Amino acid sequence: MQAEIRRRIAERVWRPGDLIPGEAELAAEFGCARATVNRALQGLAESGLLERRRKAGTRVALDPVRKATLEIPVTRLEVEASGCRYGFHILERRKLRAPVEGADLMGLARNASLLFMRGLHTADGTPFLYEARWVNLVAVPEFAKEDFREMSPNEWLVRNQPFTRGKISFLAVPASPEQADALKAEEGTALFAIERTTWNAETAVTHVRLAYRPGYRMSTEI
Amino acid sequence: MQAEIRRRIAERVWRPGDLIPGEAELAAEFGCARATVNRALQGLAESGLLERRRKAGTRVALDPVRKATLEIPVTRLEVEASGCRYGFHILERRKLRAPVEGADLMGLARNASLLFMRGLHTADGTPFLYEARWVNLVAVPEFAKEDFREMSPNEWLVRNQPFTRGKISFLAVPASPEQADALKAEEGTALFAIERTTWNAETAVTHVRLAYRPGYRMSTEI
Repeated sequence: MQAEIRRRIAERVWRPGDLIPGEAELAAEFGCARATVNRALQGLAESGLLERRRKAGTRVALDPVRKATLEIPVTRLEVEASGCRYGFHILERRKLRAPVEGADLMGLARNASLLFMRGLHTADGTPFLYEARWVNLVAVPEFAKEDFREMSPNEWLVRNQPFTRGKISFLAVPASPEQADALKAEEGTALFAIERTTWNAETAVTHVRLAYRPGYRMSTEI
Repeated sequence: MQAEIRRRIAERVWRPGDLIPGEAELAAEFGCARATVNRALQGLAESGLLERRRKAGTRVALDPVRKATLEIPVTRLEVEASGCRYGFHILERRKLRAPVEGADLMGLARNASLLFMRGLHTADGTPFLYEARWVNLVAVPEFAKEDFREMSPNEWLVRNQPFTRGKISFLAVPASPEQADALKAEEGTALFAIERTTWNAETAVTHVRLAYRPGYRMSTEI
């Protein structure tokens, strides 16, 4: 049914701004449950093709902005989903006090206590993802006691310290000496990178910089 | 209200897997319209914090996968939104027949007719985005007649040739000689890149490779 709705939009059977038939009508036309219609419309709304308003109904989107939804699982699940054995190794860990780069990005006050960590995620023993992470120890004091033998800092934080909001950026970086060394790549190699800062209410939790192995790409359907 | 719901999830007032109160109940608690509650819950579902089923209600997501939604507007709008004057320049255009690289990625048959274009999007006259594009002329014959003085190929296709589905990848590339030349960067510079292939039903429309100016990043809230 999604494919047929996409076809109607593409071929301008339903034109930008048009109100499309209601869920009950579509359910009758396609001979399926109303919940199925709802899911299909919801999916198309998420990809930017439809605009839904509970009372005003569903319209074909006027705006040509397309949305791409990237799913960002914990790294262990991503590695395991590709059929590889996951590993995480700590390369460095030390306590710091603001001001330092990561603390500035989290907006922490002078003298705030942080844990800085560098680590490598591996897939079947080969470098997969390098991370440099600053953790606000005021927000997550227990973080300092973990040895991360059971679980990576990434997964530990996801499980123990949910966040209320975050900012994420996708970019390309030339491999720094540390990144190159960890990922066994040449310095300056183009790496796909993510920078993410998360907050729990008004308190910054962590700032992390991820650099993926050369050739990594993040793909999705639109 | 979104902030308060995020707080309840973060502080485990509502735990992963829990059914949360219904829309009517939340509307009463927050003293707002049910449509407002619906929009808030929808937003949180889109970012992966909640799971919604029309009849079964809304639960706190069990799965720690976070979703980041990237909005990909036509490039003109992105440049203009940053307060800059937009420009587009064709660097090369020629007809090709499959097999060629772009045609293979679109799954076109031997001998299929394509238009290949290279172009540069500019912001206030400086390089912003380089594109190499293959267009299936069987799907979009009118494309060959356009001179793209009024509108970039990107915007022309968005307006004249909607697509039913697409695949998009985000990656980092070292600047090729052509990319470096167009973007006035050194060869090998790390560039943030997008590859996108779109189809209208079963017919491939276009394959495009975008490389952004050095330092470009795509950011969103999570």
